[in-house]
Formats: sequence, C-alpha cells, structure tokens
Amino acid sequence: TGKLTPEFEKELFTLAAQENPGSAAKDRSYSPYSNFRVGAALIAKSGNIYLGGNVENASYGATRCAEQTAFQKAISEGERRFLAVGVATDTDAFISPCGVCRQFMVEYGKGLLVYNFKPDGTFKKYTLQELLPDSFGPEDLDRPRD
Amino acid sequence: TGKLTPEFEKELFTLAAQENPGSAAKDRSYSPYSNFRVGAALIAKSGNIYLGGNVENASYGATRCAEQTAFQKAISEGERRFLAVGVATDTDAFISPCGVCRQFMVEYGKGLLVYNFKPDGTFKKYTLQELLPDSFGPEDLDRPRD
Amino acid sequence: TGKLTPEFEKELFTLAAQENPGSAAKDRSYSPYSNFRVGAALIAKSGNIYLGGNVENASYGATRCAEQTAFQKAISEGERRFLAVGVATDTDAFISPCGVCRQFMVEYGKGLLVYNFKPDGTFKKYTLQELLPDSFGPEDLDRPRD
Amino acid sequence: TGKLTPEFEKELFTLAAQENPGSAAKDRSYSPYSNFRVGAALIAKSGNIYLGGNVENASYGATRCAEQTAFQKAISEGERRFLAVGVATDTDAFISPCGVCRQFMVEYGKGLLVYNFKPDGTFKKYTLQELLPDSFGPEDLDRPRD
Ligand SMILES: [Zn+2]
Ligand SMILES: [Zn+2]
Ligand SMILES: [Zn+2]
Ligand SMILES: [Zn+2]
Repeated sequence: TGKLTPEFEKELFTLAAQENPGSAAKDRSYSPYSNFRVGAALIAKSGNIYLGGNVENASYGATRCAEQTAFQKAISEGERRFLAVGVATDTDAFISPCGVCRQFMVEYGKGLLVYNFKPDGTFKKYTLQELLPDSFGPEDLDRPRD
Repeated sequence: TGKLTPEFEKELFTLAAQENPGSAAKDRSYSPYSNFRVGAALIAKSGNIYLGGNVENASYGATRCAEQTAFQKAISEGERRFLAVGVATDTDAFISPCGVCRQFMVEYGKGLLVYNFKPDGTFKKYTLQELLPDSFGPEDLDRPRD
Repeated sequence: TGKLTPEFEKELFTLAAQENPGSAAKDRSYSPYSNFRVGAALIAKSGNIYLGGNVENASYGATRCAEQTAFQKAISEGERRFLAVGVATDTDAFISPCGVCRQFMVEYGKGLLVYNFKPDGTFKKYTLQELLPDSFGPEDLDRPRD
Repeated sequence: TGKLTPEFEKELFTLAAQENPGSAAKDRSYSPYSNFRVGAALIAKSGNIYLGGNVENASYGATRCAEQTAFQKAISEGERRFLAVGVATDTDAFISPCGVCRQFMVEYGKGLLVYNFKPDGTFKKYTLQELLPDSFGPEDLDRPRD
C-alpha cells in the first residue's frame, strides 16, 4: 500500500471535485435521473491520472458510477496497477464508493487508497481492503472444486 | 440483528447447497461460462425462505449472482425485511458475496446475517455491516446538496 | 415460435399488471427512485408461470428490471425454455423491455414472444428476434478466433 | 443520421482493431475470463475519437463492454452527441454490440452508426435504431402515469 503526500491529496480533491468548469470530473457527470453528481480521480502507479463522472441511463441498471468510468479509462489505456482513487459529490457528507465499484476495483488489488471527499476538501481515507473485507476476486474462480 | 439456531443454520446450508437433485439452489445454477455454481438461501423476517442460483449471460455484464436471484424473488413476493442469507458453492473455501451483491442487499438493512458455507457445511458468519462498512445506501441520495 | 390464445394473452396481462392487491407482479415492484413500477409475467414451455417486479437500488447500476426478476426466478427453478413474457407498467404507452433485458432473455432463444401491455390490456407483440436483431449470444463466444 | 467516408470507415477499423501494439483499443482489453478481446472506437460529433476495451471482473456481472468504456470516456469528457461507433474482436465474424451496450448507447440518440468489423476490415453497418427497435429510453420515464 502506498501513501500520498498532503499536497497530492489536495490535488486529488481538486481533480475530482472542484468547481472549475471544464476541468473537474464531477462537472461532466451525466446524472439526469438522480441529480447526484459524482466525480472520481484515479492515480495509477505509473503516475498517470484518470478522471471519471457517473453516467446514468434511463434503464437504471445500465448506470455506471464515476469510479468505474475512471477505472475503465485507465484499463483501456493499458494501466493495471493503481495507487489511489478520490471520490467527490455535491453532498455535504463523506460519500463512499458503492459495492459495485468496490467489486470493480478490487480486481486490481486490495491496497488501493480510497478517499471520500466532502465539498470542502476534507476527507475520509480507507484501503479497499477495509471497504470490502473478505472480498470475492480472481483467486476464487481458480480454486479446486469439491 | 437476529440470530439463527444451530438447527436453522444447518437447514440454511441444506437449502443452499446440498446435492439433493431438484431441491438445492446450487443445482439450478445456470453457469455455462464460469462453471462456478452458486446457490443462495434467503430467510425473510416473515419466516419465508427464497432460493436462488447464479444466472450467467454470454454478455458477462448481464450476469446475475445467486444472492440477487434470491432477493429479487423475495422482493417481488412483497418481502422487504430479511434475517439471513446463506451462500454455497462447489469450492472448498468460504466464498463471500461479491461487492455487487453486498450493495444489492444493503438496500434492505445492514443487520442481515451472511453465511458463507463450504461443501462440508462449515461456515463463516458475518453481518452485512461487517462486509460492507461505510456503505452507500438510500440515505445518501436524500442528503442536502452543497 | 409458439402462439398464445387470446384467453391466455388476457391472463398474461392480468398476471403482470392488474391492480389486484397481492397478486399482480407490478404491485410488488420496489421502485422508490424512479417511481416507475413494472411487472412481468413469464410463461415457460413447461406451462409454469413466473412473476417479477423491478427491484431498484440506491446505486442505480445495481437495479434489476422486472423481466430479469421473472427470468431469474424461472431459471433458478430449473426452467430453460420459454414461450412468452408480458410486461406492464402504469404508463399509458406500450413500454418495451430495455436492452439489458433483451440481452438477458436472448440467452434462452430468439423465438420468445414479448407482449408490451398498456394499463387497458391492449398490447403490442414481438418476437425477441425482432427486438434484438443480429444479437450477441452464447454462439459468439465459441467462434474460432483470428 | 450522419455518414462516414470510406477513408474514415477504414480509420475507424484501425483504431478499434488493428494489431498495432499500444495503439488499438482491442489490445488493451482486460478479458482474462472470456479471453474474448473487444475494442471500440467512438466518434463524437465534435470530431473527437474515444477508444475503449472490454473490462472483465471476477464477478461477471461487474464486467463492462468495450462500447461502454468508450462512451463513458467520452461522456466524462463532456461529449453528449455521437456519430459512429466501430466494434472489433479477434473473431472471424461480424460481432454485434450486446443488448446492454445498445441500451447504454441509445440514451444519446438512435441515429448512431454502428460498425461491426471483422479482423480483415470488412464490416456490417447499422443504425442503433435498427439494432434496438422500439427502444426504452429517457422519454419513457417522463410519460404520464395511469
Ligand atoms: Zn459505484
Ligand atoms: Zn454477487
Ligand atoms: Zn430492463
Ligand atoms: Zn456489450
């Protein structure tokens, strides 16, 4: 598990959340049904950063969260190893990634740092291991069968 | 949070897993792609029990887990409050619900007991709160926005 | 492809939609986010009928449609061959299954009859082949690779 | 509905499929479970192009298709209007987008051109309207209720 400097943590927040038109992930959210805008900023171990917003669908089940968008971007650019993800919303609370996203992300390791940012930039920090203990993952599909 | 008697825990295992053709959830799994059969038995607070198997799809993203099947059955019969769910596979390990299922289930409360059964009937037991700490749920969509 | 008698078509509508408390699929929908209640009634070739409502989730992507619920019930009871599915909503329009459901259902054959019912019992009827032409299915995963 | 020049159609194929290490969408697919690599290249009406690969997950239901990845990228960059999407696989057949993706894409209009490419660059071409007739979309959630 890695560690971010306070400066980098602040940068992560800015990327995910700050009302800086055209530049923050949250501003590009497509969320006409929930009106719940979410932005995610993902730092790969390569140092590259990927931003994502939530993308909703009239068929709610086809909705994709911001964290998934950021990861899908990164994966499709060839990234496989990640350091930290920051999540920001308009809500004055520490909003945590949903279980779908935790599952989506654990595919790439349990040491990922997860930052839940409030609009004021304060945050709660976890490892993915803490958010999805005793997770189901790639290793489970390879186990010997009874 | 409720509590199951040892007899009921044994019954939960039988319903989810036992190789009793035509009667156990796992036997009805549709899993031609992963060959990973999963059965779930769900106990509603009404006392009714709902069984489900995993249902895979050629488009993997349309795959539904056994726990979801059992919950969807129950929900569509009018159930909204649940006591415990048992999960069984052919794998000689304690296989835990994936994050998607944890998210699916937390909609109905964090006190749900989750049993992960091995084929020999031994189990690990959790509350859903333990498996999905600091979860995202219905309450988060109602928060005041910044 | 099979064919339903007019009497059976009427029955299918009643099962999916009619406001008969405790008996129609739509009445058991869990849809607190969209307030869009959907009911589905599925007829297996065995003659058995399975009902389902839509089941929403605070994480919209974990939402499951009514058609999926009915199919998952049926699959987990051992059914694999289906004749017809009827879909009903509160909307005065012929609401068609979403693409996720079309994909979910095509796994079991393209000849399925799909009925979209209005609240007055009138309907539009399709085969699944018509609703998902040139579909992606199990056969595609088995093709020789370049 | 727009129209692509033959040169642009060829370019679309190259972006989605060509074995040009480090540059084609398909090469970056994460598909350890199906070994079914898919690449998508999406052209927004802005002229910008977005590439995506499929991203699988040990919990199959959390798998995201290549088309979704490309769209999520584009949406989170602020794009909302699209001209064409090209899909490529390693399979010597015209593989069509799954129903989940058709649903995902129809949110942004039915006139989208969809190209299914074989590895030799030949293609079948559709409008999304043809692939998802009588679709379920944003307009359906706004209808008056009975
Ligand atoms: Zn999520
Ligand atoms: Zn699951
Ligand atoms: Zn649907
Ligand atoms: Zn797809």
